[in-house]
Amino acid sequence: MKIGILGTGMVGNTLATAFIAKGHEVKMGSRDATNEKAAEWTKANGKNASQGTFADAAQFGDILFNCTKGEHSLEALNAAGEQNLAEKILVDVANPLDFSKGMPPTLSLVNDTSLGETIQNTFPLTKVVKTLNTLNCSLMVDANKLANGDHNLFICGNDEDAKQKVKELLHDNFNWKTENIIDLGDITNSRGTEQLLPIWIRLWGALGTGDFNFKIVR
Amino acid sequence: MKIGILGTGMVGNTLATAFIAKGHEVKMGSRDATNEKAAEWTKANGKNASQGTFADAAQFGDILFNCTKGEHSLEALNAAGEQNLAEKILVDVANPLDFSKGMPPTLSLVNDTSLGETIQNTFPLTKVVKTLNTLNCSLMVDANKLANGDHNLFICGNDEDAKQKVKELLHDNFNWKTENIIDLGDITNSRGTEQLLPIWIRLWGALGTGDFNFKIVR
Repeated sequence: MKIGILGTGMVGNTLATAFIAKGHEVKMGSRDATNEKAAEWTKANGKNASQGTFADAAQFGDILFNCTKGEHSLEALNAAGEQNLAEKILVDVANPLDFSKGMPPTLSLVNDTSLGETIQNTFPLTKVVKTLNTLNCSLMVDANKLANGDHNLFICGNDEDAKQKVKELLHDNFNWKTENIIDLGDITNSRGTEQLLPIWIRLWGALGTGDFNFKIVR
Repeated sequence: MKIGILGTGMVGNTLATAFIAKGHEVKMGSRDATNEKAAEWTKANGKNASQGTFADAAQFGDILFNCTKGEHSLEALNAAGEQNLAEKILVDVANPLDFSKGMPPTLSLVNDTSLGETIQNTFPLTKVVKTLNTLNCSLMVDANKLANGDHNLFICGNDEDAKQKVKELLHDNFNWKTENIIDLGDITNSRGTEQLLPIWIRLWGALGTGDFNFKIVR
């Protein structure tokens, strides 16, 4: 599959590298086509790895991942271009973290809004699927790194078929058991999953590790 | 132990009844001393059960539980009286849920504030401990109702000794293993646990039951 990764940070890099390892073609997009971190990643990841602008990556991918920082996501997606995003699945991994008032961060979109639904409202032709935003990127790409994969992901979005495809992608590539991916409903449920970040960050501090995840015990 | 329960709703009733069952003396406080729901509860719970105003319950208890609705908590605590709350442990079980814009509710104190810290700031002599606010009341009073108690509570507050006493109380009465009660730090961490409510409510809808809890898998 052709995958477009928007963002060159740790999350984008980890997802892009993991998809390459599974045999996919991946283009990493950033503000400029010669971004240094993307160039380094491309060089290290063989013939299936390439880089370009946000627009290049969006045009390239059959499925796209928004791995930009939440504060820059709309700007990056605007640069990617509405027409390049149209009809595509965009997996929104970002969180609207606001570090401007110090640690721990607050959320810049919160309570009666969220980043996921803001992206969906801004790009109505795109199939926005919110998932993976509630855990460390090293766990995103291998559920089995923790407790034999016995913990949960949350997913939401307006398009049922898109959510199903993302579930399959996560299952087939990253060992996520489909029964452990909890579907919360439409994209407004991003409010629920993005508001996990305030406790995620505090748990990270309290536990002294980011290698943990939420499990919903029934 | 003498326990003061502020609030006569389902949470207050469940906690009060469970403490009576464990042999404690419990006074249920409400706006007026003859509240019907409190009278019914008192009648059903024998000689260790009594009712009164918020001030009566606050004066009575060695340890107090705020089980009022979040929107009424400050009013109720003001009625309880600063002097009756002073130096006492107040376990804040409430969440600042705002149902005025429909379902699912939003939070009236959120992001850079919380109900827990607002109560602490309003009553600086009280030892506010935030816990139990992230799960159904039937689970609060018996951790073993789910997965042999193998799931988590979160606790935060400024007074270490108060948190320790609350942990012991939950262990001794409600089967909470102390290692499953995660201490997040000072009372500002209420921001983290109160912001679990938006996803709790959505999970309640998605799972069709409130009998679930968060487990932090490491």
